Amino acid sequence: MSTTQALLDSLLAHKSAINLASTEQKNAALVAMADQLEADCEQILQANSRDMEQAQGAIAPVMQDRLLLTAERVKAMADGIRALIALPDPVGLTLDDYQAENGLRIQKTSIPFGVIGMIYESRPNVTSDAAALAIKSGNAVILRGGKEAFHSSQAIVTALKTGLVKAGIAPEVIELVQDTSRASAQELMTAKGKIDLLVPRGGAGLIQAVVEQATVPVIETGTGICHVYVDQAADLEKALAIVANAKTSRPSVCNSAEVLLVHQDIAAQFLPLLEEKLAGQVELRADEKALAYLKQGQPAGPDDFDTEFLDYILAVKVVEHVAEAAAHIAVHSTGHSEAIVTESAETAAYFTQMVDSAAVYVNASTRFTDGGEFGLGCELGISTQKMHARGPMGLREMTTYKYIITGTGQVR
Amino acid sequence: MSTTQALLDSLLAHKSAINLASTEQKNAALVAMADQLEADCEQILQANSRDMEQAQGAIAPVMQDRLLLTAERVKAMADGIRALIALPDPVGLTLDDYQAENGLRIQKTSIPFGVIGMIYESRPNVTSDAAALAIKSGNAVILRGGKEAFHSSQAIVTALKTGLVKAGIAPEVIELVQDTSRASAQELMTAKGKIDLLVPRGGAGLIQAVVEQATVPVIETGTGICHVYVDQAADLEKALAIVANAKTSRPSVCNSAEVLLVHQDIAAQFLPLLEEKLAGQVELRADEKALAYLKQGQPAGPDDFDTEFLDYILAVKVVEHVAEAAAHIAVHSTGHSEAIVTESAETAAYFTQMVDSAAVYVNASTRFTDGGEFGLGCELGISTQKMHARGPMGLREMTTYKYIITGTGQVR
Repeated sequence: MSTTQALLDSLLAHKSAINLASTEQKNAALVAMADQLEADCEQILQANSRDMEQAQGAIAPVMQDRLLLTAERVKAMADGIRALIALPDPVGLTLDDYQAENGLRIQKTSIPFGVIGMIYESRPNVTSDAAALAIKSGNAVILRGGKEAFHSSQAIVTALKTGLVKAGIAPEVIELVQDTSRASAQELMTAKGKIDLLVPRGGAGLIQAVVEQATVPVIETGTGICHVYVDQAADLEKALAIVANAKTSRPSVCNSAEVLLVHQDIAAQFLPLLEEKLAGQVELRADEKALAYLKQGQPAGPDDFDTEFLDYILAVKVVEHVAEAAAHIAVHSTGHSEAIVTESAETAAYFTQMVDSAAVYVNASTRFTDGGEFGLGCELGISTQKMHARGPMGLREMTTYKYIITGTGQVR
Repeated sequence: MSTTQALLDSLLAHKSAINLASTEQKNAALVAMADQLEADCEQILQANSRDMEQAQGAIAPVMQDRLLLTAERVKAMADGIRALIALPDPVGLTLDDYQAENGLRIQKTSIPFGVIGMIYESRPNVTSDAAALAIKSGNAVILRGGKEAFHSSQAIVTALKTGLVKAGIAPEVIELVQDTSRASAQELMTAKGKIDLLVPRGGAGLIQAVVEQATVPVIETGTGICHVYVDQAADLEKALAIVANAKTSRPSVCNSAEVLLVHQDIAAQFLPLLEEKLAGQVELRADEKALAYLKQGQPAGPDDFDTEFLDYILAVKVVEHVAEAAAHIAVHSTGHSEAIVTESAETAAYFTQMVDSAAVYVNASTRFTDGGEFGLGCELGISTQKMHARGPMGLREMTTYKYIITGTGQVR
């Protein structure tokens, strides 16, 4: 048996230790996990420096920055865990409770999934976020991080397990896959009956591979070709601030904007102002109409309206009206986040109704699609599918439910 | 382009006619659809008799009975549609509405999926149930029934479309796949971006094929290896009635019981009574301990505790305690419905907590797992998966949600 299969069997044997834990037990575990992360900071940083050494020259500088841990970042991870303590327990909620016509009492109760699997890349804080969300939502969890971050993840999981032991919960409910080859990912994707929910988090390639190959239930996350539409009735100050923020505050993340749509009646006024604001920072790839209003614009290529740049590049298109904007989004969006900037309540209502994405913004930046910003604590990922969960996935999205039906001998 | 692809493209072009319809429009459509079914009863029965002729000798008598329509059954279909009218509209509900710390107003609103696909077998009433649930929940729907029922389904869909026209809704929001070959099922399973949710309903083979081959989101339905556990503290009268009902009232359906577990301290008393009650009607396939208490029992074979018999056969096993019953269920159940018969509140609580199935019964028959019995109107199917929906899937389970976030120019 592979080491990964052995871990899966061990999780199956131990999951009830967390599936059935009380709110008090789970919160005590989070306290101990957070404290232990800080107590083990030195070991975690040493492990991280081993990963960083191997990363030199092997991965891009922006990825190296994602991988790097500092004492401050370890403390932020611990604080992220502590932020979950005050949130309500999503397990054991009565979602429905009624007497059916047949006299049966039907209770619909929230319960943990059981075992959650997570396949991700090189950000070590995902390890502690996912483990903490799993514990608070009563789930056992199996984590498969990228090989670049293996030593860091290992040290973090060691600390979290020590915390569990101190809180009196079996440490076997959090496991890190030891084999970072492709084979172990494949084992998780096909662990029917052992993994109740698998969440891939990372680049588009990783997510697509998991969605296509998995036979266990998967929630698709992440890829964001996000649009900002600047309406003819936009407040231009707001529009400039929102477009600049959505594009430049953190271009490497999924909720950053990739495409700007501008109403034709405002394009002549808005686009030169935007170009000035983003000058030297963002490359504008524009369609023919937009190009006419730009000094430094590049003509957009055939793929530029279907690309998640994750970079300082913005595709720009002039549209005739909000309906054309919505139609463009329907064809080119990944269903993550879109925004309209307008002072017209009617146009805003049309846009929010017609645009079928997880998060639709009026006069705000797409960058807010985030579990923390939504008040969910941290997040497991951002769902871009419609089944089960859409948008930021917090504790509630890590539960399912069952019906408990109580009778007095009813037959049918 | 295949005829099925053409239908999928047409649905995409027309879906907003139902996705955005008001409650009044949708209810008016249901009234007209139900009335038209009754008005077209003669044509529907003629079409059904063509299917019945072809079915002679080709399919089993029990399947022929499923296929047969009568004026009474057509009226029952119409009444099934009418039962949805009074139910609340699941679309446009405010699932959450709060102000986040960043000042944004975050509204979580229920919306239809968009286009729902359904692959099913030979029961013509599934055609009208699924179409009516789709309309009430604001979804366009593409139906692919079995070839045995094609003429019946065609006549039913024709009536439903006429009803839509009379109610002023584009008839292109309900479509029946014209090609009943394997190729058309394959086209539905891989219609990414066109079908938002695919629900297979039928035998285990059909469901497994769809779950394995689909690239669109699927909800797994149906297969039920349901257990009844008779505890030492059971009321034997209730236990006899519940086991007999769960096994014999309709053995061909997924919520019928396939396995009986009996506490060892009550087996000597209960099993002979049960054998007497089921005599001549049900074959008992028993493990060694149970066999000792039965006169006519057959020794259970290796697969008998993992088989959905859908027949007058019951596997019987004696267990030492409720924990062994729960452990057996954890390994052998399909997660559909299980029941405990006991007068001990403590044992009942243990059982409902430990058993991880969609519906867990105390002192009632598993046969109640059904949308109608749960008060959901009819049902699209019974989910045996944990993601998105579990148990009977009614209107609410045919919606998803989106976040609408309103700001005053916030950036991050």
